[in-house]
Amino acid sequence: MAQLQSTILIFASIFVISSSNFIQPPHPFDPLTETELKLIRNVINKTYPVGPKHKFTFQYVGLNEPDKSLVLLWHSSPHHNVKPPPRQAFIIAREKGRTREIVVDFSSRSIVSDKIHLGNGNPMLTNDEQEAATALVRRFKPFRESIKKRGLKLSEVVVTSSTMGWFGETKTDRLIKTIPFYLNGSVNPYLRPIEGMTIIVSLEKKKVTEFKDRFMAPLPKANGTEYRISKLKPPFGPVLRNAVVLQPHGPGFKIDGHIVRWANWEFHMSFDVRAGLIISLASIFDMDMKKYRQVLYKGHLSEMFVPYMDPSADWYFITYLNCGEFGCGQSAVSLEPYTDCPAGAVFMDGIFAGQNGTPTKISNVMCIFEKFAGDIMWRHTEAEVPGLEITEVRPDVSLVVRMVTTVGNYDYIIDYEFKPCGSIKMEVGLTGVLEVKPVEYVHTSEIKEEDIHGTIVADNTVGVNHDHFVTFRLDLDIDGTDNSFVRNELVTKRSPKSVNTPRKSYWTTKRKTARTEAEARVRLGLRAEELVVVNPNQRTRHGNDVGYRLFPGPASGPLLTQDDYPQIRGAFTNYNVWITPYNKSEVWTSGLYADRSQGDDTLAVWSQRNREIENKDIVMWYTVGFHHVPCQEDFPTMPTLSSGFELRPANFFEQNPVLKTKPFKLTTTPKCTPKTDS
Amino acid sequence: MAQLQSTILIFASIFVISSSNFIQPPHPFDPLTETELKLIRNVINKTYPVGPKHKFTFQYVGLNEPDKSLVLLWHSSPHHNVKPPPRQAFIIAREKGRTREIVVDFSSRSIVSDKIHLGNGNPMLTNDEQEAATALVRRFKPFRESIKKRGLKLSEVVVTSSTMGWFGETKTDRLIKTIPFYLNGSVNPYLRPIEGMTIIVSLEKKKVTEFKDRFMAPLPKANGTEYRISKLKPPFGPVLRNAVVLQPHGPGFKIDGHIVRWANWEFHMSFDVRAGLIISLASIFDMDMKKYRQVLYKGHLSEMFVPYMDPSADWYFITYLNCGEFGCGQSAVSLEPYTDCPAGAVFMDGIFAGQNGTPTKISNVMCIFEKFAGDIMWRHTEAEVPGLEITEVRPDVSLVVRMVTTVGNYDYIIDYEFKPCGSIKMEVGLTGVLEVKPVEYVHTSEIKEEDIHGTIVADNTVGVNHDHFVTFRLDLDIDGTDNSFVRNELVTKRSPKSVNTPRKSYWTTKRKTARTEAEARVRLGLRAEELVVVNPNQRTRHGNDVGYRLFPGPASGPLLTQDDYPQIRGAFTNYNVWITPYNKSEVWTSGLYADRSQGDDTLAVWSQRNREIENKDIVMWYTVGFHHVPCQEDFPTMPTLSSGFELRPANFFEQNPVLKTKPFKLTTTPKCTPKTDS
Repeated sequence: MAQLQSTILIFASIFVISSSNFIQPPHPFDPLTETELKLIRNVINKTYPVGPKHKFTFQYVGLNEPDKSLVLLWHSSPHHNVKPPPRQAFIIAREKGRTREIVVDFSSRSIVSDKIHLGNGNPMLTNDEQEAATALVRRFKPFRESIKKRGLKLSEVVVTSSTMGWFGETKTDRLIKTIPFYLNGSVNPYLRPIEGMTIIVSLEKKKVTEFKDRFMAPLPKANGTEYRISKLKPPFGPVLRNAVVLQPHGPGFKIDGHIVRWANWEFHMSFDVRAGLIISLASIFDMDMKKYRQVLYKGHLSEMFVPYMDPSADWYFITYLNCGEFGCGQSAVSLEPYTDCPAGAVFMDGIFAGQNGTPTKISNVMCIFEKFAGDIMWRHTEAEVPGLEITEVRPDVSLVVRMVTTVGNYDYIIDYEFKPCGSIKMEVGLTGVLEVKPVEYVHTSEIKEEDIHGTIVADNTVGVNHDHFVTFRLDLDIDGTDNSFVRNELVTKRSPKSVNTPRKSYWTTKRKTARTEAEARVRLGLRAEELVVVNPNQRTRHGNDVGYRLFPGPASGPLLTQDDYPQIRGAFTNYNVWITPYNKSEVWTSGLYADRSQGDDTLAVWSQRNREIENKDIVMWYTVGFHHVPCQEDFPTMPTLSSGFELRPANFFEQNPVLKTKPFKLTTTPKCTPKTDS
Repeated sequence: MAQLQSTILIFASIFVISSSNFIQPPHPFDPLTETELKLIRNVINKTYPVGPKHKFTFQYVGLNEPDKSLVLLWHSSPHHNVKPPPRQAFIIAREKGRTREIVVDFSSRSIVSDKIHLGNGNPMLTNDEQEAATALVRRFKPFRESIKKRGLKLSEVVVTSSTMGWFGETKTDRLIKTIPFYLNGSVNPYLRPIEGMTIIVSLEKKKVTEFKDRFMAPLPKANGTEYRISKLKPPFGPVLRNAVVLQPHGPGFKIDGHIVRWANWEFHMSFDVRAGLIISLASIFDMDMKKYRQVLYKGHLSEMFVPYMDPSADWYFITYLNCGEFGCGQSAVSLEPYTDCPAGAVFMDGIFAGQNGTPTKISNVMCIFEKFAGDIMWRHTEAEVPGLEITEVRPDVSLVVRMVTTVGNYDYIIDYEFKPCGSIKMEVGLTGVLEVKPVEYVHTSEIKEEDIHGTIVADNTVGVNHDHFVTFRLDLDIDGTDNSFVRNELVTKRSPKSVNTPRKSYWTTKRKTARTEAEARVRLGLRAEELVVVNPNQRTRHGNDVGYRLFPGPASGPLLTQDDYPQIRGAFTNYNVWITPYNKSEVWTSGLYADRSQGDDTLAVWSQRNREIENKDIVMWYTVGFHHVPCQEDFPTMPTLSSGFELRPANFFEQNPVLKTKPFKLTTTPKCTPKTDS
């Protein structure tokens, strides 16, 4: 528990509150309900008065991860007739300038743990405090004068909050930098930055603590930044034809609370203000064994590291840790039916605690839909059997669970795709609006500097080079809790003389089970190897280790120097794949406290302990990386760019698990004229 | 024209045939029609009598690539009012033991060129000669005795043809190896190999030239190899629900002959007996410029190299060059509506010349359909504009063109996916049946050898390790013919003192235009770089080079030693990406004559000339690679495993080309009950 090492236990006395009719949600992983969030506020209010007059704010409220063994005991019991694990909430709060970690127990309605965090880093920023900070700036006289000096109208100025990062400072107060943008005819503020000012606000002191107007930069035009269809002018196009997906027998999935059942899959989905969408207890039904078998105990976003590549004063600090600083759940958006998720999608809301502890809802924050992409699950045409022409084809269907988190300018589409063959695909789509820098020129021929740190994407506008590193935490439990990580290297061999054929070489597999964390750090692309998480305690009837294989996507690693501050904080990107032993406190790869963190509580530091990981409960960390050199097509909104990875059963099943799937039996196209608006 | 260097011109006199009402197909890239194939046979029959009594066989008949400048002249003329290029066919034939390259001109109905190929390598095998060869083996007495000796019934034996490869022999006659399999209760012969015999057939002499019965191996069971839904026994599952894709306003694409128009795309699709599906003249409509702009002059499969990793006598030669040896078009299969291609798909037939020159049809060999995968084309939620809540989302649709080529046991799904944003994705899906090796054991604990070269996937059955290297030839013409290949390396820089910020590093792009072929050879994964094909003669209004960027998939390179014969023949896989100057004769990366080739006519050899490629008509070669360590899930049929790559516009357009696409306006789900069978 690295992030708690420097904290001290203040008190843990129990405040018992008189019992009422509070009913625990049906599943231990269900997200905190509105009722529970209210209860948390009430419980805490007894000790720390909450409200506008008091210096107590809720920075993070989430489910306190229940003990894994108790969850599994409950989960595996027939009809869940075993007592579920105690239900508790984990709260990070600011109280009189201190950061507190509070655990509230629901059955006793009491605080069961309360600690002060004394280490580095600050908690997640709340929406409320960011709004308050930017409002402060708008009222700040020197800022108003700077706006006036530029000939701009304050009413058209939008102030947004950016984090400070950490650049070697010893004191890391809860400060943010704010960045002004200009509307005035545009609703796409991120494309009209007002550069040249340094504006630092103390979230604690609630005032502007530093203001510098360093220079005046050109302001990119409003013209060309519009993207609302209602405001764009013809010609429109390209013209796409509508489609309706009809399911004559209804959708293939069933939702029971937060449990989703579809085809051979069953999993739980939840929402957390920091991670956003969480998938847990994903298991797949094995027709041979006539039972569900575990695959993924828990999977979710752990962090998104987004460093920009301009070292100048207006840009150097833009090295976001989106989930840890802004909350990938807090920044998640309501999904629009038919466009964000196709017809037939089912939506779920997300509820989280606002800064004052009251429940806030994002409606339709997650969706579930069946994907009929026209793919082929498996097929074979056999022409060698005399008198028979065999063609057997199974069309594929998959189930997608989606969220979109919009952290300022960028919209991140996060998809978990489940396939009947046992595969789970994690996909990250990048869209939204670029972060741009004003320049005086409109054409490359005018460039005077050696480096403009990006691409001219519009008049007076440079789309600045940057990276996106999206790290998933995947607590895999392949057919049970204790697993090993196998690196199956493909090694070239010279043919032995004994085979007596003219063939000179071949490759074979050199299997190596990673014993410790160091042996499981992987930079993709360096060597040919299969990466497999196996259960060394389970074998197929042919003696193969039961496993799931990682199919990586295209590899991208970090390019910042190792001594650079953002890379010290983002050191969890130094490898594409890491394995750690399960540790309840190692959830956030950038550290529990990511804002202004100093890199002492990252996955890279935990991994240095080089713990044993063989035949243990292990966690896989995978980073999807993008190096983004912007291009004009990314302006004024960016066509989605996707990348991801896949986990596929490898000797998990005794044979093709979809061999006996019946193909769709569509024989006639429905005869009807659907009513649409267009 | 490497493959013609060693040929000599025999004669080129023109046989004029009396004119008739033959009408040329409307497009110069249209595949040879039935009428044309018959005409070719008639024309050739005048010089080389064709028929069962004569030693003349058609090994390859395809369109003789018309002169590119003439095609472009015709293509770009208003209403195509310019004379199309002369229409000709290119024929590779065997005539009295010699390989002839014949060009037939349709307007003059004559042979305009006739050469004898004297170099290495043999032409593609025809289906007819393979069938004749395997029939010979079934009648061959020693073979029948060997079958009898094994206690097997000859009536249940299937004999298939395998190529010999080349292993240093100086004489490379048209020989094949044949491999027997056993049915007897199974319709999945590839899972029941009868090992231990070496059976070589001369295609020319039409006799078994070598037969050895070396040993007797166990025979894997028939039980468990069934995959026909009609023969499998319950329980069935997982259960998937049907879906119907309804398009209230009809499909979004229009087909005019072989031209497909959809959204902003226009392209021509064709079929070739060696390549299969060919996409050409793909261009995209630019709404700003109000015109179609060229992207891909021609794109198709050039080769599939599939070496197996067992050096023993029964396996060492299995190092297929599928397209060059068996024909990826010849091996293409009829696609099944609703399963191979979803509802709404439109199908096209493929016609090719059989061994005796008569037209052979594969119905429904290609399909075109719109893919509604539930993806998001672009989106943005903007929360910073006071008083406005903006969410703009455009759902994505794409157009897929598909073929499936089943080369014996493996089914390869080849998809070209066009997106409205300008992206083209090439995807390869592997499915079908493993190539397996009988072993005496059923469990890993029984293994005695050091290496079984694969995985025990069923009783007495090892799925043998192998690779799939699928090479695409992409003659890109980005906004015109003359293009350059730019390697935009991402280079880490130390922040200069002058910026005066605590940021220590950043990355920037170091642009390098490849001047020669050597500078354009790319092994993926070794360094961070963007690979872009640009038109150096076209710039955006901001001065950026107009281009298309390659987004590679996961990288896999060859693992055989460079001196090994299969790798010499498959040397085109030594790099993932190559660029060559356009050369009409450099179409087949494994050489025009791939069967028993010696690697002297591969892309790797052409590239050694290190020609200039800057601001020239260039061709990109991309290899999608898979290392396949089989697993039990691949038995008895293999769930599709996919990989691919993408080409995306990068400063090709002045801005997001789908900014003004109208979102679907679906407001009501159609109220109707579709009639289906299930």
